[in-house]
Amino acid sequence: MKTAVPGPESKAILQRLSQYQDTRSVFFVADFEKSKGNYIVDADGNTMLDVFAQIASIPVGYNNPAFLALAKDPAFQTALANRAALGVNPNKDWVDQVEKAFMRVAPKGLDQVFTVMCGSCANENAFKTAFMYKAAKLRGDAEFTMDELNSCMNNQAPGSPDLSILSFSQAFHGRLFGSLTATASKAIHKIDIPAFNWPKAPFPLLKYPLDEHQDYNRSVEQQSLQAVEQLIKENKQPVAAVVVEPIQSEGGDNHASPSYFRQLQAICKKHDVLFIVDEVQTGVGGTGTFWAHEAWDLPESPDMVTFSKKFQAAGFFLNSRLRPTQPYRLYNTWMGDPVRAMQAAAIINEVESKDLLTNVKQVGGYLQSQLPTLPTLANVRGQGAFIAFDLVDGAHRDKLLTDMRQRGVNVGGCGDRTVRLRPMLTFQQHHADIFLNTLEDALKLQQ
Amino acid sequence: MKTAVPGPESKAILQRLSQYQDTRSVFFVADFEKSKGNYIVDADGNTMLDVFAQIASIPVGYNNPAFLALAKDPAFQTALANRAALGVNPNKDWVDQVEKAFMRVAPKGLDQVFTVMCGSCANENAFKTAFMYKAAKLRGDAEFTMDELNSCMNNQAPGSPDLSILSFSQAFHGRLFGSLTATASKAIHKIDIPAFNWPKAPFPLLKYPLDEHQDYNRSVEQQSLQAVEQLIKENKQPVAAVVVEPIQSEGGDNHASPSYFRQLQAICKKHDVLFIVDEVQTGVGGTGTFWAHEAWDLPESPDMVTFSKKFQAAGFFLNSRLRPTQPYRLYNTWMGDPVRAMQAAAIINEVESKDLLTNVKQVGGYLQSQLPTLPTLANVRGQGAFIAFDLVDGAHRDKLLTDMRQRGVNVGGCGDRTVRLRPMLTFQQHHADIFLNTLEDALKLQQ
Repeated sequence: MKTAVPGPESKAILQRLSQYQDTRSVFFVADFEKSKGNYIVDADGNTMLDVFAQIASIPVGYNNPAFLALAKDPAFQTALANRAALGVNPNKDWVDQVEKAFMRVAPKGLDQVFTVMCGSCANENAFKTAFMYKAAKLRGDAEFTMDELNSCMNNQAPGSPDLSILSFSQAFHGRLFGSLTATASKAIHKIDIPAFNWPKAPFPLLKYPLDEHQDYNRSVEQQSLQAVEQLIKENKQPVAAVVVEPIQSEGGDNHASPSYFRQLQAICKKHDVLFIVDEVQTGVGGTGTFWAHEAWDLPESPDMVTFSKKFQAAGFFLNSRLRPTQPYRLYNTWMGDPVRAMQAAAIINEVESKDLLTNVKQVGGYLQSQLPTLPTLANVRGQGAFIAFDLVDGAHRDKLLTDMRQRGVNVGGCGDRTVRLRPMLTFQQHHADIFLNTLEDALKLQQ
Repeated sequence: MKTAVPGPESKAILQRLSQYQDTRSVFFVADFEKSKGNYIVDADGNTMLDVFAQIASIPVGYNNPAFLALAKDPAFQTALANRAALGVNPNKDWVDQVEKAFMRVAPKGLDQVFTVMCGSCANENAFKTAFMYKAAKLRGDAEFTMDELNSCMNNQAPGSPDLSILSFSQAFHGRLFGSLTATASKAIHKIDIPAFNWPKAPFPLLKYPLDEHQDYNRSVEQQSLQAVEQLIKENKQPVAAVVVEPIQSEGGDNHASPSYFRQLQAICKKHDVLFIVDEVQTGVGGTGTFWAHEAWDLPESPDMVTFSKKFQAAGFFLNSRLRPTQPYRLYNTWMGDPVRAMQAAAIINEVESKDLLTNVKQVGGYLQSQLPTLPTLANVRGQGAFIAFDLVDGAHRDKLLTDMRQRGVNVGGCGDRTVRLRPMLTFQQHHADIFLNTLEDALKLQQ
């Protein structure tokens, strides 16, 4: 470490940038050219172990050689210089890219993929798919009526139906109008923005350590499931789908048991409500399986699984029975990006050839075993290397994050008082030791 | 031309692709490696003059040398291999990219830019900005109340206010929940998707030729403006902003006079309603000015201007008074993409160094003068090379598009019976002559 973080060079750049953009959320300015693997270098030349990884979106390390090699690939450069409207003129290698990037890791039974440009768009298009499916069911798969076709042009029922997506307290599914309606992590994200009248069920907030609170935890999970079933049965706006994160991330790294998710899926199936799993943050290996929901041992796949962030490509998997009856109902200009699909394929190659899921499980297990031995921190929880713990309050958490950054470890928060670890898949035990040692030092500075 | 379009190779690829994705909207499969300038080559080796250009999103020709050179630039490759979360860790050259890609062409007085990943996201974030601004005004710029902070977490008023965006009949602003609510181009885009109760004013549908219908056209424009003012005054959901396309594109290439837009802005100002101009399709030179709204001679810039498509980068310009009071209210993981910003800067360089706006004006004027001499087609209208005309009905239009494609010209439709020309900025008079000759031949096949 050469300076405080942010240092003078970061501050000078941010002062210039703040003429044009709001920079209040920025931690520091990065020098990505100098960053490497698990280490990010800032504009002042400080080198930090990065356990935040661009809000959980760097998969296999800065300047990964496979990524750099891909940037020199003529097919990659062609895709960059000629951006396809994939719904009109897909490139001739798009079908290969779809197979190599998506179908190779498609959850079993989900034989379709729809690609878009970001995580919010992924969730909103999954919601649209659910509404089209539900509306078709409600009209008995009949043709659209003239009344429906006319009324939708004025945003009125029956063409614009009063259906809903059920989500959970503390959920985060994005920041556009539909995805923000399903979000309930922080008021500052939602206030002043019109929202649909969609319902929320309480998400279980488990107590830790799990083995000391089995009865309590089973009870809050059952309360959540009962609330879900009641809302599905009684909510004024019929529920087309339930959307859930495998681990509520932005909302505080809230976990639930595999049994909870199996029961949740069963309730959805019982009432013919679609079950959407939002793997935008949990997907692509961070939990030790490629998709976090693989750990639930579901009898069959969710109806849709959304992705973005670490996969570089965004979109969702679906079953072919959910494909809209008419074309142009799920559609947009670019419909994804072959550049990001090629990167997604490269990520899968890295995960497989370097056995990164095993690495994540090992280093995640090590971290989960060591963290509870440190003083002051509470509620250590994790799946793979997707780990979190709590401080006594937000002020102590924020101070810890700042103190760690000054000592060369970049880590982020979530929820009210939580520290979330989002290491890359290439994070190893010696990185974990640096993290643990720095954390131990920083915890000594807590009042 | 070697085969019909789509040819056997396109069809074989689409058959494979349709296992995973809906391909019913696809015209043909592209071979971008072989495409060059204004010519697209398909998977069967057919070479077509491209006047559709990936739904109006290719700016300076396939395999433009400046784009290919950029793909070899180390800074570009660094940005590709290390995708920044720009709200947390902007890259150290991001501020330069913002200046070179955005501020250089920012509408006068709009000194801020917010970047995202697609056109729908650009519009939705502009809408969010308008709602935050309006809600702050309505509460007298006071602090949020506890009631507001609590109610928004349940998607209820007052925290989730019943405010609206006013848009127009035939408008297209995107396909996510907010932008789709503001859209009214085709029922198939909207049906079965829940929408907000936001109002629509009639957009004037002018008669052509303009000089023969001056009184009628003035009258429909005044009717539209009166409807706008009445909705602003009386709509149950207070109007936070009016959003309008300079030329309604997806909805049928509907134009209005500069005077209409000046009056529309004046009405917005009079009632303290924000004026958002959606330049997703019209922006970046196709109309002969960099932004289409420059042709209106407004006394001051619109409050926000959104962009995407041909600019490769998506987002919107805004005035600093619209910057949200608190951080994290306009925010997401990536907040845009330095890769696409660098391409946007390269586009501006091409536009300036090759004087492409002059080219667009010249070739556009030539096309606009020649098209009315052809038989059968009606209502020739345009601004620069952003030109359209109508056939007698949709069936004749669709046949014309197919016939032209078989003869080596790729062109698209919009509205019910309209052909829309969306040439690249590098489209020249000899390309226009090929287009006109092919059109003349294809028109002879109309019944």
